[in-house]
Amino acid sequence: MPERLVVIGCDAAGGAAASQARRLRGPDELEIVALEKGGYTSYSACGIPYWVGDVVDGPYDLIARDPDTFRDRFDIDVRLREEVVEIDLEAREVTVARLGDSGGSYILEYDQLMIGTGAVPVRPSLPGIEAEGIYGIQTLGDGEAVRNAIDKGPKKGVVVGGGYIGMEMAEALFNRGMDVTVLEAATEPMATLDPDMGRLVSDAVVGMGIAVHSNEPVEGFEMGTDGRVRAVVTAEGRYEADVVILGLGVRPNSDLAAEAGVPVGPTGGIRTDRMQKVDGLEGVWAGGDCVETYHLVSRRPVAIALGTHANKQGRVAGINIGGGYLTFPGVVGTAVSKVSDVEIARTGLREKDCQAAGLQYVTALVRSNTRAGYYPGASPISTKIIAEKRTGRLLGAQIVGFTESAKRIDALAIALWNGMTVEELAGTDLSYAPPFSPVWDPILITARKAAEAVEDDIKEAVVHFERRRGRV
Amino acid sequence: MPERLVVIGCDAAGGAAASQARRLRGPDELEIVALEKGGYTSYSACGIPYWVGDVVDGPYDLIARDPDTFRDRFDIDVRLREEVVEIDLEAREVTVARLGDSGGSYILEYDQLMIGTGAVPVRPSLPGIEAEGIYGIQTLGDGEAVRNAIDKGPKKGVVVGGGYIGMEMAEALFNRGMDVTVLEAATEPMATLDPDMGRLVSDAVVGMGIAVHSNEPVEGFEMGTDGRVRAVVTAEGRYEADVVILGLGVRPNSDLAAEAGVPVGPTGGIRTDRMQKVDGLEGVWAGGDCVETYHLVSRRPVAIALGTHANKQGRVAGINIGGGYLTFPGVVGTAVSKVSDVEIARTGLREKDCQAAGLQYVTALVRSNTRAGYYPGASPISTKIIAEKRTGRLLGAQIVGFTESAKRIDALAIALWNGMTVEELAGTDLSYAPPFSPVWDPILITARKAAEAVEDDIKEAVVHFERRRGRV
Repeated sequence: MPERLVVIGCDAAGGAAASQARRLRGPDELEIVALEKGGYTSYSACGIPYWVGDVVDGPYDLIARDPDTFRDRFDIDVRLREEVVEIDLEAREVTVARLGDSGGSYILEYDQLMIGTGAVPVRPSLPGIEAEGIYGIQTLGDGEAVRNAIDKGPKKGVVVGGGYIGMEMAEALFNRGMDVTVLEAATEPMATLDPDMGRLVSDAVVGMGIAVHSNEPVEGFEMGTDGRVRAVVTAEGRYEADVVILGLGVRPNSDLAAEAGVPVGPTGGIRTDRMQKVDGLEGVWAGGDCVETYHLVSRRPVAIALGTHANKQGRVAGINIGGGYLTFPGVVGTAVSKVSDVEIARTGLREKDCQAAGLQYVTALVRSNTRAGYYPGASPISTKIIAEKRTGRLLGAQIVGFTESAKRIDALAIALWNGMTVEELAGTDLSYAPPFSPVWDPILITARKAAEAVEDDIKEAVVHFERRRGRV
Repeated sequence: MPERLVVIGCDAAGGAAASQARRLRGPDELEIVALEKGGYTSYSACGIPYWVGDVVDGPYDLIARDPDTFRDRFDIDVRLREEVVEIDLEAREVTVARLGDSGGSYILEYDQLMIGTGAVPVRPSLPGIEAEGIYGIQTLGDGEAVRNAIDKGPKKGVVVGGGYIGMEMAEALFNRGMDVTVLEAATEPMATLDPDMGRLVSDAVVGMGIAVHSNEPVEGFEMGTDGRVRAVVTAEGRYEADVVILGLGVRPNSDLAAEAGVPVGPTGGIRTDRMQKVDGLEGVWAGGDCVETYHLVSRRPVAIALGTHANKQGRVAGINIGGGYLTFPGVVGTAVSKVSDVEIARTGLREKDCQAAGLQYVTALVRSNTRAGYYPGASPISTKIIAEKRTGRLLGAQIVGFTESAKRIDALAIALWNGMTVEELAGTDLSYAPPFSPVWDPILITARKAAEAVEDDIKEAVVHFERRRGRV
């Protein structure tokens, strides 16, 4: 009798875990059943805004591995529209509800359990939130629903929350011919950046013709007698809306696991060890948007919903389930996105993250060019670096610029990963040729300015100390 | 009486040294005289092929800082067309020849001396090399000469040496309407890459309509009775040429310094300490293409002619001359270039460099996409990683791909700088979003394959060992 691996959620993490486990253990050794409550497997949720905006085709182009591939190539028993409604850790079994017409439910025993239940969009408990026409963006089904709504030719779209999904969706609706307004509660949209960098994004978005209202938390939604949303209401005004997109982020979908007694951390994500094994539970694994992971700079748990982490964590879990050994090392908080021609990137801590972590810092923000100034296509790029006082250790970096800007964050992410100081970073051997960079790469210039800021701060501290001593 | 700093060569290194020294020490403390034998100061030699190819304007657009700026903003006495023909280290003076109409020479004493004499193109001692119409590409004057030649409407261009300058110049001549042939002595052009990656470049160049002949070292040049070059001759054939470009690399222009007794290393570059002070000589500094530096991976001296190093080294020298403290940390051999739409990047050691350094290695070469496969504009990118056997330490990396490929080398350069293993690199937090990368970034996939190659090699070694033990 082979062991049985039951996978809950067959998207990035669950799908990767299942296929990696199969690579190491054949069907004679391991039976694999993957339960997916939705209608699709292993798809790119990050691609949904581009599908809605008609930039890419969907939904099938967004699917990395379909159920037939799982079945035929990996001998994995994928069951679509089947939802796990209860986990019994004692009995080592799950209760599965059939969501299709047949209905009903059944019990399935497991030897190994992989939890990959993903995330759910945050839906604020505001008056009118139940109105039709208010969409979160998380699954291909969500994407389909928004596309169907847009196909009916609505005029006005309101995006609640100007994070990266919100901004991408604002552009998508705009590209589909709608009047679009973004309502952001914070002082600037793109709150994954510091406000000074978020401002650069919002200026660009406003320049496109999208209205951006900052400092306007939503207070409720107006609903028509037909049950459909009519408008979004803030303290400042009333914004008519045929379609509303929630861009308030997502939270780990860990309720099912938590009810079963699976440990959940302060972020709401399932707690695992480095092998992606759930803390304290043998044979139970988790990965992807439903878990929390370790932030290498803040040294705190974080829940970051991102396909690349989900794929890696699923792969780690699958290799360990298969009897190999691999760990997930944690993250530094790298992310990129774009709105129209504006590219946005970040890694590490923002200023407010530093404050929360008890790290004092200096900053440098430099506007430079993506190419040598004289080379055609040279575009503005703004780079911000945050460095710890005294030590000069790199703590975070952000980039806002035009084409060829955002991917430069990777060099900063690797520098951060290695705990480099800005002084050392300023001396590194980054690539230079006129079509690719000024002779001083924007990263080098910004690191140099940050190193100077560290030095100036030390000098100031010395002067301050000397003055105090003089007084005593 | 202020001290006097004499700067030999007012290009990237000399110019940066002069202006940094001035920032720290005013004219009352330090008189600065910069002697430049050419007609221009601080220009981008890397921009010359693009100027020749009419991609950028020149020569003035290529100049970062002109003589008036040096004089008016920095109080630096720049003397154009004045060449230092002798250095007397004992007497602490240089002999300066005036190259203009006035002629003559004079003696100039120094307290501090900065040597920034740059590099000279390699001119092989072959029959006919003295013919007119054979151009090296190093100074703005060289660029002007080639442009003047092309303006006369020549038909056939031959580029001798398919390195990055050779390839850039081949494209420039081609863009100006010439028939172009590249003659390369090695098995593939772009010998700064491994042959498997160089092949990708040569395929692309041939696809543009440029003829590339590998394994064809040049044996001589045919000269007409007018003293002009007629053809380039190899063992395989005779290639008619109206214009010949030498792309055989450059060597440090250290002869003047060596004659004076300045120490020159095995690379032909001037030997300096980390502060860019010439080894064993007080008050004598050097930087840029005329020096050798330390390769952090091979642990050997190298001479790499690159504007970004020259700028950094000049800045280091200038800050130290000014009484500050800064060091140049060495290089990892990062470089980028492009030919038409093909982007080329490298960092660290090639396979043959590993062999020369006594480092055994495995390799991984992965063809992937620059963006998510379903996102418009996704283009092929080939990434190669070289990792040390057993330790898995990253030793080098190369990238050949279309737009948005080359700058990704910077993340690998920083990884190399920090001595990361490919296993660790494969787990790093690189940025992902569909317009920027597949969910597994090409660097991560390649690092993973390299890590697997390291593991496979270890397993093979174990099997081999067990077999041998069995036999004994």
